[in-house]
Amino acid sequence: MSNNPFDLVVRNARVATASDTFDSDIGIRGGRIVQLGLDLPSGTREIDAAGRVVTPGGVDAHCHLDQPMAPPARMADDFDSGTRSAACGGTTTVIPFAAQEKGQSLRAAVRDYHQRAEGKAHVDHAFHLIVSDPTPQVLSEELPALIREGYTSFKIYMTYDDLKLDDGQILDVLEVARRHDAMAMIHAENSDCIEWLTKRLESAGRTAPRFHAHSRPMLVEREAAHRVISLAELVDVPILIVHVSGREAVEQIRWARAHGLNVFAETCPQYLFLTAEDLGIDDDYRGAKCVCSPPPRNKANQEVIWNGLADGLFTVFSSDHAPFKYDAPEGKKPGGEEVAFRHIPNGIPGLETRLSLLYTHGVLQGRITLNRFVELTSTNPAKANGLHPRKGTIAVGADADLVIWQEGQRTIRNADLHHDVDYTPYEGIEVQAWPAYTLSRGEVVWDGEFHPRAGRGEFLRRGRPTLLPKQAA
Amino acid sequence: MSNNPFDLVVRNARVATASDTFDSDIGIRGGRIVQLGLDLPSGTREIDAAGRVVTPGGVDAHCHLDQPMAPPARMADDFDSGTRSAACGGTTTVIPFAAQEKGQSLRAAVRDYHQRAEGKAHVDHAFHLIVSDPTPQVLSEELPALIREGYTSFKIYMTYDDLKLDDGQILDVLEVARRHDAMAMIHAENSDCIEWLTKRLESAGRTAPRFHAHSRPMLVEREAAHRVISLAELVDVPILIVHVSGREAVEQIRWARAHGLNVFAETCPQYLFLTAEDLGIDDDYRGAKCVCSPPPRNKANQEVIWNGLADGLFTVFSSDHAPFKYDAPEGKKPGGEEVAFRHIPNGIPGLETRLSLLYTHGVLQGRITLNRFVELTSTNPAKANGLHPRKGTIAVGADADLVIWQEGQRTIRNADLHHDVDYTPYEGIEVQAWPAYTLSRGEVVWDGEFHPRAGRGEFLRRGRPTLLPKQAA
Amino acid sequence: MSNNPFDLVVRNARVATASDTFDSDIGIRGGRIVQLGLDLPSGTREIDAAGRVVTPGGVDAHCHLDQPMAPPARMADDFDSGTRSAACGGTTTVIPFAAQEKGQSLRAAVRDYHQRAEGKAHVDHAFHLIVSDPTPQVLSEELPALIREGYTSFKIYMTYDDLKLDDGQILDVLEVARRHDAMAMIHAENSDCIEWLTKRLESAGRTAPRFHAHSRPMLVEREAAHRVISLAELVDVPILIVHVSGREAVEQIRWARAHGLNVFAETCPQYLFLTAEDLGIDDDYRGAKCVCSPPPRNKANQEVIWNGLADGLFTVFSSDHAPFKYDAPEGKKPGGEEVAFRHIPNGIPGLETRLSLLYTHGVLQGRITLNRFVELTSTNPAKANGLHPRKGTIAVGADADLVIWQEGQRTIRNADLHHDVDYTPYEGIEVQAWPAYTLSRGEVVWDGEFHPRAGRGEFLRRGRPTLLPKQAA
Amino acid sequence: MSNNPFDLVVRNARVATASDTFDSDIGIRGGRIVQLGLDLPSGTREIDAAGRVVTPGGVDAHCHLDQPMAPPARMADDFDSGTRSAACGGTTTVIPFAAQEKGQSLRAAVRDYHQRAEGKAHVDHAFHLIVSDPTPQVLSEELPALIREGYTSFKIYMTYDDLKLDDGQILDVLEVARRHDAMAMIHAENSDCIEWLTKRLESAGRTAPRFHAHSRPMLVEREAAHRVISLAELVDVPILIVHVSGREAVEQIRWARAHGLNVFAETCPQYLFLTAEDLGIDDDYRGAKCVCSPPPRNKANQEVIWNGLADGLFTVFSSDHAPFKYDAPEGKKPGGEEVAFRHIPNGIPGLETRLSLLYTHGVLQGRITLNRFVELTSTNPAKANGLHPRKGTIAVGADADLVIWQEGQRTIRNADLHHDVDYTPYEGIEVQAWPAYTLSRGEVVWDGEFHPRAGRGEFLRRGRPTLLPKQAA
Repeated sequence: MSNNPFDLVVRNARVATASDTFDSDIGIRGGRIVQLGLDLPSGTREIDAAGRVVTPGGVDAHCHLDQPMAPPARMADDFDSGTRSAACGGTTTVIPFAAQEKGQSLRAAVRDYHQRAEGKAHVDHAFHLIVSDPTPQVLSEELPALIREGYTSFKIYMTYDDLKLDDGQILDVLEVARRHDAMAMIHAENSDCIEWLTKRLESAGRTAPRFHAHSRPMLVEREAAHRVISLAELVDVPILIVHVSGREAVEQIRWARAHGLNVFAETCPQYLFLTAEDLGIDDDYRGAKCVCSPPPRNKANQEVIWNGLADGLFTVFSSDHAPFKYDAPEGKKPGGEEVAFRHIPNGIPGLETRLSLLYTHGVLQGRITLNRFVELTSTNPAKANGLHPRKGTIAVGADADLVIWQEGQRTIRNADLHHDVDYTPYEGIEVQAWPAYTLSRGEVVWDGEFHPRAGRGEFLRRGRPTLLPKQAA
Repeated sequence: MSNNPFDLVVRNARVATASDTFDSDIGIRGGRIVQLGLDLPSGTREIDAAGRVVTPGGVDAHCHLDQPMAPPARMADDFDSGTRSAACGGTTTVIPFAAQEKGQSLRAAVRDYHQRAEGKAHVDHAFHLIVSDPTPQVLSEELPALIREGYTSFKIYMTYDDLKLDDGQILDVLEVARRHDAMAMIHAENSDCIEWLTKRLESAGRTAPRFHAHSRPMLVEREAAHRVISLAELVDVPILIVHVSGREAVEQIRWARAHGLNVFAETCPQYLFLTAEDLGIDDDYRGAKCVCSPPPRNKANQEVIWNGLADGLFTVFSSDHAPFKYDAPEGKKPGGEEVAFRHIPNGIPGLETRLSLLYTHGVLQGRITLNRFVELTSTNPAKANGLHPRKGTIAVGADADLVIWQEGQRTIRNADLHHDVDYTPYEGIEVQAWPAYTLSRGEVVWDGEFHPRAGRGEFLRRGRPTLLPKQAA
Repeated sequence: MSNNPFDLVVRNARVATASDTFDSDIGIRGGRIVQLGLDLPSGTREIDAAGRVVTPGGVDAHCHLDQPMAPPARMADDFDSGTRSAACGGTTTVIPFAAQEKGQSLRAAVRDYHQRAEGKAHVDHAFHLIVSDPTPQVLSEELPALIREGYTSFKIYMTYDDLKLDDGQILDVLEVARRHDAMAMIHAENSDCIEWLTKRLESAGRTAPRFHAHSRPMLVEREAAHRVISLAELVDVPILIVHVSGREAVEQIRWARAHGLNVFAETCPQYLFLTAEDLGIDDDYRGAKCVCSPPPRNKANQEVIWNGLADGLFTVFSSDHAPFKYDAPEGKKPGGEEVAFRHIPNGIPGLETRLSLLYTHGVLQGRITLNRFVELTSTNPAKANGLHPRKGTIAVGADADLVIWQEGQRTIRNADLHHDVDYTPYEGIEVQAWPAYTLSRGEVVWDGEFHPRAGRGEFLRRGRPTLLPKQAA
Repeated sequence: MSNNPFDLVVRNARVATASDTFDSDIGIRGGRIVQLGLDLPSGTREIDAAGRVVTPGGVDAHCHLDQPMAPPARMADDFDSGTRSAACGGTTTVIPFAAQEKGQSLRAAVRDYHQRAEGKAHVDHAFHLIVSDPTPQVLSEELPALIREGYTSFKIYMTYDDLKLDDGQILDVLEVARRHDAMAMIHAENSDCIEWLTKRLESAGRTAPRFHAHSRPMLVEREAAHRVISLAELVDVPILIVHVSGREAVEQIRWARAHGLNVFAETCPQYLFLTAEDLGIDDDYRGAKCVCSPPPRNKANQEVIWNGLADGLFTVFSSDHAPFKYDAPEGKKPGGEEVAFRHIPNGIPGLETRLSLLYTHGVLQGRITLNRFVELTSTNPAKANGLHPRKGTIAVGADADLVIWQEGQRTIRNADLHHDVDYTPYEGIEVQAWPAYTLSRGEVVWDGEFHPRAGRGEFLRRGRPTLLPKQAA
């Protein structure tokens, strides 16, 4: 061992993994963790983490960056601002989507998204595929090939006219997931119910932002959850139901688990920290800031989601970052107008605030253990997406993606955030912990200031999901 | 750092923790893991683990050693043979019971058990208390004091005349667990139902060993599970229901979890590998070898238990080792006689076979991940009992309690085991993995041969349970 | 057929049974219904029911009359005032209890209660037995003999020190019910939980009447319900859980039914019309008027009970009339004092108001059909207790026990009631229907005025329950 | 009253209604029951029913007669043979379907079916509508008008390409049911799942009749049940799920009920008396005789259905008579060929055997009471379809539709049946009871011989459903 064996040593860390908490120095070389132990020899650089918790960098497995929208809508964050925001919030891996348009080949979609990311990303990234047009060609060739090439997850929509698949298509696509050991993510809401309710609300003149929540009650999500669980049971394949929002869908997932089905679930900060009232208690258009799907529910429901985080119901905690400016014609005011809720772009920003919110209100307030925090925000998303153990843990051989935490009162202010959105739905919420440092492959990308280097973030070719001994069944 | 910084280096290990799997050397000094990394400097001793999985030593949180019985019954294993058997099977921490007799002070019981262990143990150990006589003195003084002194768990029996508590007593004892942050373990079977059924079976002449299973059908366990869940809900305290055997109790526990209650559950090898038929399909007395409570169920039920291990329902996997010789007057043939099932000592041996059975049939056959194996057999038992992270993981600072596994076909034969029992209920079952080495605090206690050193095993003064952020609720 | 074939014809009735509604005259002779049809020949007496609903007289299968209490408590109603109150409210059959004291023979208890009823009853009556001391003599001789003699139902208490049975005793008694085809009624509350909570409340100085509800939360009932369902499942015998009050017990009963168990349930007006707030929102002692067990719950829970009445979960709707004067030393103020809730006699009056409350708020407000009203209040109680079809319907051959209803606004006032209690818990509640006439075996006992004839009420020797094809399982 | 006041007196009947059983003569005039009582005066005709049970004539609310099929398929029974078969089996009211073809107006469909029935029916009949093309015209005009004219029920298909509605259409149609107080019946199977499975089976060469059952496993029905329950919950309208076959759908219905939803369910003889093995244990084409949808399940599932009949889960018991000859080119061998299961006409005959099978195996074998039999086969179907109390009971004013039962061993043989089908799926099953007489509006249509008078059966203009106090919610 040379005199200076490490590029960097993080000293005296209170290291937390998904299972353990222990005191150790972290020796880093070549962007990877090469040694753990106390009293490690010096590194070229040293960071003293004494008294501080160090966790693996966050893996945000559900976020949207620079995804083309029907005009005039345009996402506010591209791979530059999006990964900047991630880095500043402690997230070192993002997995946005490469969405197939109907009629488009999947491969063309993938190519397009790589170009969008090219030279921009500040942290590592991969792509989930979105399959919106499962032609025989897609099913038999493109999708299997892309899975083999490391795009080992894809998303299925049960709603949105331009994306949704019917039950037969879902079965076909799940069959591919099963055969090729990929992870299928499901947006579970019943499209026809939403349309039926929306029309009724519209014909009653109820078009203010808050009626978005009325158009997607919990049963709309519950029905779709039950349906896709049934489809997955038929195909005999694990699924991950994303952004689970309501008690009723949670009950369906518990039911599935109790029947031996491998149904995983993801939830998001908006279901812990927002309620339908944030979409407005009157017809105030500012409620548009919190229009996302599924919509936030009520206070009692927040407890159901917290319980699911604590007891293992949820496997993954993501942001579902889908950034639109509020006061912009390409954002929440299409063409500059206050429009009916049906026309408001769906989605809220959250990449940067995800970790701090859960750390504060989950760990520090005693709802979940520190290890469970790591599991939900980093380890499991890495496992679900074939990135573990390179990502998602602090262990010998893993990438040196780290967050060094500092505790202390702080109020979330959009002015302090680094995305390209003109608001945060979490404005004014108090947090008691925030990343002091974010390290991406051993490089400090955030230490209270952001250290930009667009393009340093690498594309991650992924392996098969490892939540289960063998993904299929 | 000196020239020879380690007492021992385990080289090129495929290390598995409850969350991660990675390749590393393990540097050990003073009985503890001090460094992880590849290419560690030399140790005084080296073990090459190339190509081998290394897990934390097993923590068997449910076993009975040298526990006094009503004559003529006598347990076959004391702390010498019991911990020998543990060590040879990869278990480096055992937590047997210190049982209060009615009328006895808890402290006297603890003193007695320490004497029993004195100078005998080959691996580390602690004691759960068994509270059978919760007098005001016990509740207000002895139990709180013992918890403070590191006896941070105790067991409550809902059956067995000499041990069982009534509902009011259970409430009182749970209240102490809540106030002093101890873990309450519950043997959940309805005593009156068992007695009623036993009398009916006896009056019908149905006294062969197999009728033991008839006297304790699944609903007997289900009812007690529901009841103790209710009592714990009233007191607002976590509980751990031990040796859960049947689908119906499992359903109650799922129900409790879904309602936000902190109900943990343990299961044991006998519910995966045995069925009621092992107690005899005719009146053969050899069925007595498998008489334990709750009794094994049927094949379909084994799948329910496997599902619970895979999906997180179970937190702990223990042996419930309760060793009695088969062909002995102090064992399964009391006074040398083939007696009615009511009089057969309850319990089976299992300390040595626990890990290998689960590793083979769980991990190698693809039912659970390697990480889940570690969690169930080592990490979670350590957390549930206030021993983590000293025990239950491979991390900097942890005790160097390790198992180095070797794969390869092997048949379980009692002749090869190291307990003092004349049979194993698992005779003839194939396993594909077995400990090549067991290390206890850096010392090799098993490497295909047992290296006895009675008394080297230490008593472990324990902290509060850490399965939850804060144990109480 | 003679010129004057009927003693009485009720003319032009809108007859309702548990299944049908039709227009008919009702021809009565010898106290029984002998003919149905329009344009029947004249009767010696005629009552014109044109435009009026006529239902079978109510069967109140759960009421307490003149039951001896521990001094100074004394029930306010004996068989005179109790049956008077029943008749004026449309109830023509009452089934109070003959309670065995510990140490007493069941037969002595029965004898005692017959003496209490002797010469007093205005309507027909039977006795449920209360088995509080199931000695071998009681189990093998007295109880079977009494069942054969027509006492075909008995009640088991899981709480109250002087009455409660332990699980083993319950199994023994249920076994008698199974063997001799009797109906077992269960008061399901966990005694130890109540005692534990009561002591805690008392030691916190929380002794006002409203804390009675705190001492018996829903889980206390749920646990006992689950337990007795399990005991009945073991014995394989139907049971009737009485006065079911809470959502949680309801869920257990649904669970039992879904598993094929014959678990019947009864509820009472207090769980539809009262809430825990009626026991006081501050420490006002008048809350004692509503102290009964189980206690009323909250508004949301009332909807659960209504739903259970509508959908078939409940089989029987009874009053659980347990009459104590409020402002009396033998009543709610023992010895004239305002006492701690533990010492307040449990029970409320309700015989006279039961039918009118359910008719108004159930039938007239569209929650249940008229036929379901008849089923719940008359037909099913008669079937459950071996009185059908003599009682519980309007059919050829049945006793001419009838209620002719009049609709119209009326406010419940204790001043208008006929029991010997100085209050009604339903004071001030509006009803829209009330008996215009009550006929008992063809005799008008109420037509807006009460027509007393103490002793005209007959004792009913009962057959086996007929809710099921064959009672046992 | 004249000297001969009755056209017919059924003498000394053991009358059973849905709630009561009593001994009475039944006096009939003008086709209706005008008097009940013993010792009624003479009738022009008399039938002695001494010692015999008399029930209301059966109402078969689910049968298909002369419904046009895609060629070459043709139903074997028209309104002549179908109602003949009904009458001989004790059924006096049939409600077949008037099916709208896509593109056709509903009214044209109704007109067509009236022509098919014209001059043929031997017993009374009504029509359910089948809505397969819910155009704005149908939704806003035709359907409301037809409901007003007495077609107060309609059926929605979730499968079959020519009939099925998508979720949005179902919501629209349910909304009409809600607004106009009609009963919506649902065929609940997921169409896409069936198609997906069918293709897989076909591509594996699995086309024998038995694979029909493989193509429609229980989850296909469960999913659709959950979905339509959700749609009905959204609209807030009662529904009736027809021909419920499997445990999993049953569990969904229980779940719905427990949540306060008005979800009714129907089952059929095929789910009690057949299993999937009746479709063949090898590839024998005779399995085609039992091809119907949903398919029969297994033995254990039969018990689930029996339990649901006993405990109130099921409201209606129908035949789903859908008659196709086995050995005929227009029947189970299309064009004379043994075809792949996908091409076998779906359906089995059952009108004539329905009552006898349930009476024998339900009532006589002690699974359900006689009253429940009447409720399931006659009273509830009449209530669900707005025919009660004219149909479905024995009461003053009701149509004199009666079955006089005779007990005695008999074996079901197709040779003895009166439909135009060349087999019965129940061939060889023993029954212990059979109609001795069937009376339709006081006329004997069956007394061991059939008394044909085509065209005597009347069309029944129906009122609103009366299962609930007020149909909507």
